[in-house]
Amino acid sequence: MTRTGLWLIGARGSVATTAVSGLLALRAGLAPPTGCVTQRPEFAEVPLPAWEDLVVGGHDVVATPLEKCAEPLAQAGVLPHHLLSHIVPGLRAVDTEIRDGYHPVTHQGSQADAARRMVDDIAGFRDRHGLARVVVVNVSSTEPPAPFVPEHGDLAALEAAMADPGRAVLPASSLSAYAALRAGCSFVDFTPSTGIALPVLDQLARELALPYAGRDGKTGETLLRTVLAPMFTARALRVRSWAGTNLLGGGDGATLQDPDRAGSKLESKARGLAALLGHDVVAPLHIDNVPDLGEQKTAWDHVSFEGFLGARMTLQFTWTGLDSSLAAPLVLDLARLVAAAHADGQSGPLGSLAVFFKDPLGSDEHRFAEQTRELYRWAGELRA
Amino acid sequence: MTRTGLWLIGARGSVATTAVSGLLALRAGLAPPTGCVTQRPEFAEVPLPAWEDLVVGGHDVVATPLEKCAEPLAQAGVLPHHLLSHIVPGLRAVDTEIRDGYHPVTHQGSQADAARRMVDDIAGFRDRHGLARVVVVNVSSTEPPAPFVPEHGDLAALEAAMADPGRAVLPASSLSAYAALRAGCSFVDFTPSTGIALPVLDQLARELALPYAGRDGKTGETLLRTVLAPMFTARALRVRSWAGTNLLGGGDGATLQDPDRAGSKLESKARGLAALLGHDVVAPLHIDNVPDLGEQKTAWDHVSFEGFLGARMTLQFTWTGLDSSLAAPLVLDLARLVAAAHADGQSGPLGSLAVFFKDPLGSDEHRFAEQTRELYRWAGELRA
Amino acid sequence: MTRTGLWLIGARGSVATTAVSGLLALRAGLAPPTGCVTQRPEFAEVPLPAWEDLVVGGHDVVATPLEKCAEPLAQAGVLPHHLLSHIVPGLRAVDTEIRDGYHPVTHQGSQADAARRMVDDIAGFRDRHGLARVVVVNVSSTEPPAPFVPEHGDLAALEAAMADPGRAVLPASSLSAYAALRAGCSFVDFTPSTGIALPVLDQLARELALPYAGRDGKTGETLLRTVLAPMFTARALRVRSWAGTNLLGGGDGATLQDPDRAGSKLESKARGLAALLGHDVVAPLHIDNVPDLGEQKTAWDHVSFEGFLGARMTLQFTWTGLDSSLAAPLVLDLARLVAAAHADGQSGPLGSLAVFFKDPLGSDEHRFAEQTRELYRWAGELRA
Amino acid sequence: MTRTGLWLIGARGSVATTAVSGLLALRAGLAPPTGCVTQRPEFAEVPLPAWEDLVVGGHDVVATPLEKCAEPLAQAGVLPHHLLSHIVPGLRAVDTEIRDGYHPVTHQGSQADAARRMVDDIAGFRDRHGLARVVVVNVSSTEPPAPFVPEHGDLAALEAAMADPGRAVLPASSLSAYAALRAGCSFVDFTPSTGIALPVLDQLARELALPYAGRDGKTGETLLRTVLAPMFTARALRVRSWAGTNLLGGGDGATLQDPDRAGSKLESKARGLAALLGHDVVAPLHIDNVPDLGEQKTAWDHVSFEGFLGARMTLQFTWTGLDSSLAAPLVLDLARLVAAAHADGQSGPLGSLAVFFKDPLGSDEHRFAEQTRELYRWAGELRA
Repeated sequence: MTRTGLWLIGARGSVATTAVSGLLALRAGLAPPTGCVTQRPEFAEVPLPAWEDLVVGGHDVVATPLEKCAEPLAQAGVLPHHLLSHIVPGLRAVDTEIRDGYHPVTHQGSQADAARRMVDDIAGFRDRHGLARVVVVNVSSTEPPAPFVPEHGDLAALEAAMADPGRAVLPASSLSAYAALRAGCSFVDFTPSTGIALPVLDQLARELALPYAGRDGKTGETLLRTVLAPMFTARALRVRSWAGTNLLGGGDGATLQDPDRAGSKLESKARGLAALLGHDVVAPLHIDNVPDLGEQKTAWDHVSFEGFLGARMTLQFTWTGLDSSLAAPLVLDLARLVAAAHADGQSGPLGSLAVFFKDPLGSDEHRFAEQTRELYRWAGELRA
Repeated sequence: MTRTGLWLIGARGSVATTAVSGLLALRAGLAPPTGCVTQRPEFAEVPLPAWEDLVVGGHDVVATPLEKCAEPLAQAGVLPHHLLSHIVPGLRAVDTEIRDGYHPVTHQGSQADAARRMVDDIAGFRDRHGLARVVVVNVSSTEPPAPFVPEHGDLAALEAAMADPGRAVLPASSLSAYAALRAGCSFVDFTPSTGIALPVLDQLARELALPYAGRDGKTGETLLRTVLAPMFTARALRVRSWAGTNLLGGGDGATLQDPDRAGSKLESKARGLAALLGHDVVAPLHIDNVPDLGEQKTAWDHVSFEGFLGARMTLQFTWTGLDSSLAAPLVLDLARLVAAAHADGQSGPLGSLAVFFKDPLGSDEHRFAEQTRELYRWAGELRA
Repeated sequence: MTRTGLWLIGARGSVATTAVSGLLALRAGLAPPTGCVTQRPEFAEVPLPAWEDLVVGGHDVVATPLEKCAEPLAQAGVLPHHLLSHIVPGLRAVDTEIRDGYHPVTHQGSQADAARRMVDDIAGFRDRHGLARVVVVNVSSTEPPAPFVPEHGDLAALEAAMADPGRAVLPASSLSAYAALRAGCSFVDFTPSTGIALPVLDQLARELALPYAGRDGKTGETLLRTVLAPMFTARALRVRSWAGTNLLGGGDGATLQDPDRAGSKLESKARGLAALLGHDVVAPLHIDNVPDLGEQKTAWDHVSFEGFLGARMTLQFTWTGLDSSLAAPLVLDLARLVAAAHADGQSGPLGSLAVFFKDPLGSDEHRFAEQTRELYRWAGELRA
Repeated sequence: MTRTGLWLIGARGSVATTAVSGLLALRAGLAPPTGCVTQRPEFAEVPLPAWEDLVVGGHDVVATPLEKCAEPLAQAGVLPHHLLSHIVPGLRAVDTEIRDGYHPVTHQGSQADAARRMVDDIAGFRDRHGLARVVVVNVSSTEPPAPFVPEHGDLAALEAAMADPGRAVLPASSLSAYAALRAGCSFVDFTPSTGIALPVLDQLARELALPYAGRDGKTGETLLRTVLAPMFTARALRVRSWAGTNLLGGGDGATLQDPDRAGSKLESKARGLAALLGHDVVAPLHIDNVPDLGEQKTAWDHVSFEGFLGARMTLQFTWTGLDSSLAAPLVLDLARLVAAAHADGQSGPLGSLAVFFKDPLGSDEHRFAEQTRELYRWAGELRA
């Protein structure tokens, strides 16, 4: 396949740094593709860009060089210490392709100005490297939920509002999505932020014949819930309550201790659980910022269920994951898959990629096994 | 559908007592069919016997009346206290249809004699109640693994050996299976004992055009493993070790503390895990007899896995189930499904019922979601 | 020892019902004194009232007969089913000694009126039964924290305010404590409510030469924390974070889902943890109402700690307790111990009973082992 | 205090390497003394050797340089990566003081010869460095339990047998203890091996006026058990069963998967639990070798207990520790404490150090809090 761009919004964050480091390691044969779904046999003949074909750039609001960003990830067990020295040249090369991100507080001028600049950044990157296409992936910090305003449903009104320097009609994640589309790129929302999930952006994507996918990468507790809940359903066991606690450090923990931002995450989790079980359950859920855990994310779930003749039983699980390690290979997978969809002429939400997301756009299916089957089916069609 | 018999080998054990109590409660509208797979919408139009159509009898080597057997189950939280008084008449009625089981130590005469008597018991039951057919289900205590002898592969040699009063060529579970077939009945092996899993019995079932299913009901730790392992595979995560500890009381705990008997259970569990992951893993597994837990079965599993760039992560779960509560509704489900298969003219191992078993006969599929899908597909054909 | 009264505030609640049922069972020899600290050898010769010497009465705002209150506790595994029929006469006898409790919303008249009526209730009970003394124990629902007002520090001002029908200067728990003292009785606060923990009530108890003890019975997560935290300290291991989640149903769960009321509970827990470790730690703590758990209380704690050279390690525990089963025997213990202290002429807060409480009055010691040692020492003095 | 030697049997193992690395880091001010009990305020004025006063040497049967031994420990999170470069010179210096250990298979000649050589090694070390005294600490691999023979109770007979080149009358750990005593040194047994726990060696230590301490460092599951079990006892709760599973990798895992060697560890654990609870309980316990866990040791315990009126409750815990990180600071503590005892003229088993051991020599006390109190009392006397 021809050369393909991966443009990361939040290009210096933990997920992005891990994805870039891993891509360099894979290319150099320094690590096996563990965690990369697209390396499974089911994708053997699907026309995906090879690791060698991916070129990375991005936006970020911070300026720390990637090799500095990689250090704490090595401390945290996300990146192997011995890997760092091998990938420094590659990280520096990517650094040269990272541009200043949009920040609603520091930005001067209208959002239209910002969008124009971002379009130019992405288009310049594509031209410089002679890329067939670019997939823009949002891996920046989670935003608080944004209130819906009428402009979010009307392109003309939106663009008028964007031209007004006194307004910030779009949350930053949606501005990135808009810029991606205007640059002729597909878009992936790996966070629970609003991003592309506005009617006006869906419409724009369809008009421009661009595919997109989202949202909120499914990497931990929700992954397990979408695997386990269908078991209870299939066995006709009645879940009475499903309580969850998430302990996380790192930037994500700090961001999500803000109840506003956690709100968007908790909502997307709750929606999924009710959909999976087919009925509401008591499902208290907490996200706690525990800085000493660093990149580690620990989730404890307690499921109380009822069996034959009302017998009371429980399932508990504790998941101890490294969030960036789980997310990064999926970001690479999504870049490959969405690029292939774009090449194939698909547009609008790619519901067939639901297995990657907590809150899948373009799909009502939350069951992991069914999502997996749909992904394979879809890949099979690409192959054909 | 016409009236159908359910003949339980081990009719006074905890699983059987729970199944019978539950059937009486369901019939009387005293409990919802929680835990019964066949009450799910997918089976709405499948021609299964109704709860009212099922008549129960069985063999057992003990003589305690069922209402006595039910008391400790009420103490243990398996049967609701308030239910007992309502079902006593029904339990007594079933008591009149329970006959002495075969016990290798106390039996006098040849195994052929024993088989003849058991066939008569089952046939008499069928005739007395005017049953269209009878499903024989083994829910008796787990046996130690039986060594294979040449007679297990040759019907004529087997029947000659059975006629010799000095030999006990078949383990008790297999003698029950033989008697079931000779009585023209289908057979279900809910235990890990040898049962029908001998070439000669498979051949006999096919010759007599009788269906069978097995083996070893999937109710706890293995259920979870077959749900969770495919997640690791689909996400390309490499499981490094999967350790398990099972604490169980009740008769099952006492039986399985005998390493010989546990052997057959542990073997069937290990086979499944390797099949699911596609490679061997370090998987130490223990079954401990902890009498004070009574009917409760607690399993703790610790899964260590590797993600992107070798990152190390873990999943632990603790399952606290009431084994009889989980098994009993599946026994009723299997009676209905196997009766329907028999009515439909199917014979040999019913691999489509793999979802019910740890060690499915007639199927290599261990993944829970795939097994569920196959069950629904098969049920759909019955409906048509 | 002479006959002693136990007057329960919240006499129809789960803890009270369990305590009364258990006392009846102990007296009748129907159950061993499991969970009763005062039955341990260390108390063999301490002059405590015998089970036979305890007479029970109390206040409650609800009127459900105790035998009705006992039924859900039997369903929940707190009371054995077979016990109920034996203790019905005893429960009915106690019912005749339960009077209407004070409720701030429904009460007509001044708090002084209410106190007078409560004093009369308790004194009448004492006289009717010829009791040497009465211990009043608060086991009613947790109140929200009450704001401190100047009257809480000045007896004359307090009693003036109490006489004003337009004011409710004391929270209900403190009104009960006041009435207890005015009736010449010792007082025990088994809840985190304000109760006797006001300067003015402490002063009154000392003036009237009455002992008291409190507060907030230590029965679950906090019990474990006060056992485990000293281990980390003694081993010089540095606890980095200690996160906790509590799932509870029953009335307590519903009460504590009210953030105001949970507030008083969470505060008392946090105070203890910092005191135990000698430094603040990140310690997010949640209480979730999960009605289906009924009387069961499940706590999950995740402790992240650092060892030699910064090595990162964790301890997790899951405690699944029946709260009333844990609390009730301690209520009986406290009745016996506080009666003995009263007989011994002690007054003011009994810091030596700190082991029973999350937030011990009259003691700064939170370490379980040290508290236990102090209790034994104190009991030894009583013996002498 | 004057300069003191620490002579490690198994000087290149994980515990020893961690202890030496940590000592170097402490001395250089590169790490705080987390995990070192003797740095707590209770020991502030106890005359212990300072970190600067400790000189390290030892025996080992392998020859890998310490800096090589340190590498996998850095991978495993036991040693910080950034520390390694700073301590290499120190590790090399210690390397020069490590001599060939005794190995029963490769040794040529009598055990008397071996002992003589070992005595010379230790004495030479002491002389070369002008040490006031040397503490010999066994941190080598666990041996299988050794059968008792009459020579183990009679010094003359023992030494006669040791002179016979055809016999190996002492297990290696006991030969090391013998050599230590003959060199005039105190001895500490940090492993469950036989070591000094033979009547003849106890007698020799007393005759030579040498103190010793042991055995089997208490660093994980047993530590928690000796903390938690007294809680159940003090609360009069009846433990019904206490099941445990230990998953461990590293050399220890491989060693202990040998049922013979695990035997000595499991026995010492079971002894302690019964002693703590005052009665036998069902207590199945497993040690599983799970190589991928490396230095990590994960223990899961499930405690089933009974409260008031027979109520059934459970406590589960999961401990995830790095064994060498937990053991190493205690090894340094023991060197300091035993040196101080030696300087103080104490001899025989130091029961006051019981808190450090699973199977304390010279003490019947297993309760952690009581052991801690005794340690502080003893240290107070040293100070006086």
